[in-house]
Formats: sequence, C-alpha cells, structure tokens
Amino acid sequence: MKKRQKSRREECPVARSLEVVGDRWSLLIIRNAFDGIRRFGEFQKDLGLSKSVLASRLHALVSNGILRVEPSADGSAYQEYGLTEKGRGLFHVVVGLRQWGEAFLFSQNEEHSVMVDRSSQESVHTLELRSQHGKLLTPNDVVVKKVRVREGSRSKIPG
Amino acid sequence: MKKRQKSRREECPVARSLEVVGDRWSLLIIRNAFDGIRRFGEFQKDLGLSKSVLASRLHALVSNGILRVEPSADGSAYQEYGLTEKGRGLFHVVVGLRQWGEAFLFSQNEEHSVMVDRSSQESVHTLELRSQHGKLLTPNDVVVKKVRVREGSRSKIPG
Repeated sequence: MKKRQKSRREECPVARSLEVVGDRWSLLIIRNAFDGIRRFGEFQKDLGLSKSVLASRLHALVSNGILRVEPSADGSAYQEYGLTEKGRGLFHVVVGLRQWGEAFLFSQNEEHSVMVDRSSQESVHTLELRSQHGKLLTPNDVVVKKVRVREGSRSKIPG
Repeated sequence: MKKRQKSRREECPVARSLEVVGDRWSLLIIRNAFDGIRRFGEFQKDLGLSKSVLASRLHALVSNGILRVEPSADGSAYQEYGLTEKGRGLFHVVVGLRQWGEAFLFSQNEEHSVMVDRSSQESVHTLELRSQHGKLLTPNDVVVKKVRVREGSRSKIPG
C-alpha cells in the first residue's frame, strides 16, 4: 500500500467545507433555500425542527455568508433569508446528494421528487466532472495532490 | 410568494441521502476512501478521532453498503475498507464540497490540496449540470417537482 503523508485538515477543501456545512440540518436548510423557501416559519414547517435549533442554524448560515437576511418580497415586516453567491455555490453539492439518493436509496417503483429543466420540464443529466480537454472523469481518473508548507516558503509537492 | 406543499422528508432524495451521509465524519471517511485510505489505523491517524467513534462510523458505512470489508491487499491479516459502487457514487458530492471550499473558503494566496487529472496532472473543470440538450444549468434553470401520494395510487403532480 502506498505511504500517505498525514494531511493537515485545514489544507483539505473538503474538510474545510464540512466544517461549515457538515451537518444535516444546514444542508436541508440550504436545499430549502434553493427550492424557494425564505421565511423562518416555512423552514420550520418543512423541516419540523425546533425553533431554537432552526434559529441557531440560520444564524450560523448567515454568519458564514451562505444566507443573508433580506427584506420581505411582499413588503411585509417578515424577515426573509436568501442564498448569497457563496450559498448558491453549494448547488452542485445539493444536486450531487439528490442524484446519489435517486440512484441508490429508492426502490425502482418508489416515487420521489425530481429535478427538471425549468424551460423544457425534462429531467436533467447526472453531474459531470471533466478534464481540461473535455474527458469525462471517474474517481480512478483523478488524484489529490497534497500541499506541504516549508519553512519560509510554500510549495506544492509534485505528483 | 408561491404556496408550497409540505414535503414528506422521505420523498426528497436530498433528505434521504443526508439521513445516510449527513454528518461530517462519515463524509470525511468517504473522502479518505476516495484518496486510497483503507485501514482502520490510517483513517484514525488522518482524522484524529476516537477509536469508538471511527468504529461506529465505519460500521454504519458498511451497513449502509457504502464501504465493504475486503481482504488486505498485501495478504496480511489486516482488515481493509473499500468503497462499493454505491460509495463511489458519492464522488460528485465529495468533488462538489471540494470545489465549493476551493472557491469560497480559502484566501487567494492560501495553499490547499488540489484535484488533478491523473494522466495530464492538470486541474479539473468545475462540476457541470446539463440539460438533455447539453445546456449548462444554473440554480435558476431548474425546478424540483414534488410528488403526492394518493389514496390507492401514486402519481406525480404535473409541473
């Protein structure tokens, strides 16, 4: 087996992302925000979690720049939550979770919500990871290069 | 604001996925497995978590069909863990978390591990979601259709 250098957690973007959104409620709130849910009461009704847990998750998502508080769309006094650009950047994570669930967690005849192209109402393709030359990449086609921080300089370990 | 039908959690593939992998440790273990880590001690060293927590997460991942126990590659008595097809199906979720972290959680000069195309050693493209006709889809271009279960029959709500 290959020797593997001990990773420093903070150097791994996956780990750093999970420090911010690595819990079920936060990702469900983000999913809801993509689906157009904007108000505290709506999140609560959909998720069925306690007000205090929801408030703390929403506060953390706002603090982390994923959601922002916005004036109510209908001019009422209600506070609303909308995805920031950073929050919208989680689109592929939410789609990836959806497509994995669709592929592996439902029986063949079991119905579930589906994501469709808004204009054609047709189902969407599975997410694709491609090389600079357009080649479709599988897990075997990629490798993660670790970073080593040297005294007085920072340089990547080759290959 | 649009009226929105209360969702049943089990109908949403995102929610069902998060019931299985919606915690930070499980996703970090899966990330490690993609990076070639296979042994208990290696996971423990990389993640720095207690043996009991790691054992319980590995057990759950095996029970859920994401990892499987495999004979040691070097013929020793060590037990190893490898991703199943279902586990490998989480590739886009892990890549999505990585790419979001790279885009939003590192300062410009801050180094981090990078995912490259194994053959060319070049960086990979950002994940892409496309329509049946090849159009690149953003969050605004898609909509999730809910499912309603009727008495004695199951049918999708149109559009």
